[in-house]
Amino acid sequence: MPGPLDGIRIIDLTSMISGPVATMLLGDQGADVIKVEPLTGDLVRYMGPNRDGLTSGFISANRSKRSIAVDLKTADGMQAVQRLIATGDVFVQNFRPGAIERMGLSESKVREIKPDIVYVSISGFGEKGPYAHRRVYDPVIQALSGLAAIQKDHESGRPKMVRTIIPDKTTAITAAQAITAALFARERTGEGQHVKLAMLDAMVGYLWPEGMAGYTFIGKEVKAARAQFAQDLIFETADGYITAGAVSDLEWQGMCRALERPEWIDDERFNTPNGRVINVKERLAMTAEVLAGRPSAEWLARLDAEGVPCAPVLERAEVFEQEQIKINETIAELDHPVAGRIRQPRPAARFDQTPAGIQRHAPTLGQHTDELLRELDMDPEVLRSSGAIKA
Amino acid sequence: MPGPLDGIRIIDLTSMISGPVATMLLGDQGADVIKVEPLTGDLVRYMGPNRDGLTSGFISANRSKRSIAVDLKTADGMQAVQRLIATGDVFVQNFRPGAIERMGLSESKVREIKPDIVYVSISGFGEKGPYAHRRVYDPVIQALSGLAAIQKDHESGRPKMVRTIIPDKTTAITAAQAITAALFARERTGEGQHVKLAMLDAMVGYLWPEGMAGYTFIGKEVKAARAQFAQDLIFETADGYITAGAVSDLEWQGMCRALERPEWIDDERFNTPNGRVINVKERLAMTAEVLAGRPSAEWLARLDAEGVPCAPVLERAEVFEQEQIKINETIAELDHPVAGRIRQPRPAARFDQTPAGIQRHAPTLGQHTDELLRELDMDPEVLRSSGAIKA
Repeated sequence: MPGPLDGIRIIDLTSMISGPVATMLLGDQGADVIKVEPLTGDLVRYMGPNRDGLTSGFISANRSKRSIAVDLKTADGMQAVQRLIATGDVFVQNFRPGAIERMGLSESKVREIKPDIVYVSISGFGEKGPYAHRRVYDPVIQALSGLAAIQKDHESGRPKMVRTIIPDKTTAITAAQAITAALFARERTGEGQHVKLAMLDAMVGYLWPEGMAGYTFIGKEVKAARAQFAQDLIFETADGYITAGAVSDLEWQGMCRALERPEWIDDERFNTPNGRVINVKERLAMTAEVLAGRPSAEWLARLDAEGVPCAPVLERAEVFEQEQIKINETIAELDHPVAGRIRQPRPAARFDQTPAGIQRHAPTLGQHTDELLRELDMDPEVLRSSGAIKA
Repeated sequence: MPGPLDGIRIIDLTSMISGPVATMLLGDQGADVIKVEPLTGDLVRYMGPNRDGLTSGFISANRSKRSIAVDLKTADGMQAVQRLIATGDVFVQNFRPGAIERMGLSESKVREIKPDIVYVSISGFGEKGPYAHRRVYDPVIQALSGLAAIQKDHESGRPKMVRTIIPDKTTAITAAQAITAALFARERTGEGQHVKLAMLDAMVGYLWPEGMAGYTFIGKEVKAARAQFAQDLIFETADGYITAGAVSDLEWQGMCRALERPEWIDDERFNTPNGRVINVKERLAMTAEVLAGRPSAEWLARLDAEGVPCAPVLERAEVFEQEQIKINETIAELDHPVAGRIRQPRPAARFDQTPAGIQRHAPTLGQHTDELLRELDMDPEVLRSSGAIKA
């Protein structure tokens, strides 16, 4: 059984993370994703740890794709991409606004070749405005979206970044969903359209539900510090770190029993949800003091027995070794023909009738150039001698 | 023009964040989302800041939906939901594994009523394994997925949480994409299916591309500290904080000029991408020293003129006041009939033919109970007197 997007072809001119992770998700779901790279390749091919020339970042953002490397400034190279577009259902690019038009692949040009194509533009900031012309990296969006303010150090007041590229990857999933919705609409209407997505917009929308809870009611803005979920629910035990949290009354009562502090159950500071929020500092300090006294495993068993949500705080190397991840088969071990034995997460959503899965290994630069040119009835040798593809 | 998911009806039994934000995204895109709540309502109705009884968290996770509040333990309440299911394209629930079956709405029961429905189960950890039975809150997934380890304090070694609910919201967008893909497949095959998504899987997959870069090559694991993007690219200026980063040679050269340190351009420690990575501590310390000397606005203008990605680090209250957000119309100001004037982000992805948008305000509890029952040819007064709906 093929994936839910079987039969869809995506012509993917994106690079870095926001675009490539989006098309990878769609490739895992069965779309035929053709990554069109310049002769020098996507920059991510050269960033971070690598083995035999393939970086882990490239591998993890470009599985389930084929790669064609062509010089779009040559007539033959442009012709090859135009022929590809004629076979495509989706065209995606994440250049800065204006660049794709200068390259000769504006929406109208692409739509001339394939009238019902879904044309997708991912940008950092949108098409207009003071930032539209600027380059974007993930930290810029963390700074502008409020994420760095949310992470602010309470003592020094210094804003802090999250150490994983939340805006890039959130934009990627948001783009994948929007592309899929446009494909759904095309099934019903027969028409393609232009889908535009700015990282800044994706991130502001993502943070909003609780991250901007204090700014939702106009005229009743509350101090950011009072926003929900602001506590760092990590507790040090005698031998490590755990997390545990009680939201409902039942969970709080369970926690009091697990901690052998039954007298806290009737404590008026804590016996209502609102009381637990108001007296959070005291409650967490008292909890931390108790938890520091015994090892993690003992506390986790006691908390679990009382129905209190809890878990050990795992090191990265422990994540894929844990029992739950193994039972879920979250991480696959695969033999990449170039990079050797690798770990990759399977697509998170499981479809029982049209299963998604890792369809292909991340390609080497231009690995499928000849194969794809032949599918387009073009002679690779001619393009090679004209310099449109690599010698 | 309606949104891309116009004509789709979603029967939504989810609560809290992971499910409701997913269906809200689909509602913004035109799906008719019917939120089925117990008579007590979704817990998020009672968490965090509120105005006239509606919390900001509920408003921001439940716009573009209608609410029906019924007691599923009554025969009339169950009948109402079954009639709703008969009209639905998607059924979504995020109870703990086993609960929906006990409630009498297992996949087979639901499929008896509507054979081609897309049945969606969102869970914390999956259906089997040591965590499957447990309650889940966002911090538990931060702890188990490695996110808290990625955020570890470098000096103390203490793991730290991100202060926004990344796992909940990432699961929501991942679920929205998967549901849309299953609807696309149904258009082509005529068949529904069961889509299962665990928060833990969604989060591990999300973190992987660079967060787990060091664990991708089996047998060549590298120290987590060496993973990409680990620097906190925030610099203190004479009057605030900015972010600025140089990845390519051109950007680095631009930064050297903007900082009036042309001699750094040929410095052998920094004149290659790899050199800049290896000597990152020195480079950032030198950069920070220079940036501390003048105000943010001056540096940002200089850096922008040299093509270096940069931005001020904004406070939350500055985010929606910035020029770029205004030009993008990222944040809408609306009059909620109960909660008054509110701010909400518009759906991030813009569709030029089937525009998404905020379709309705977040409903009060059971606001559409009578309207929906009448649509189902059921008499609200009968259900009211039997206790299936609120008096």
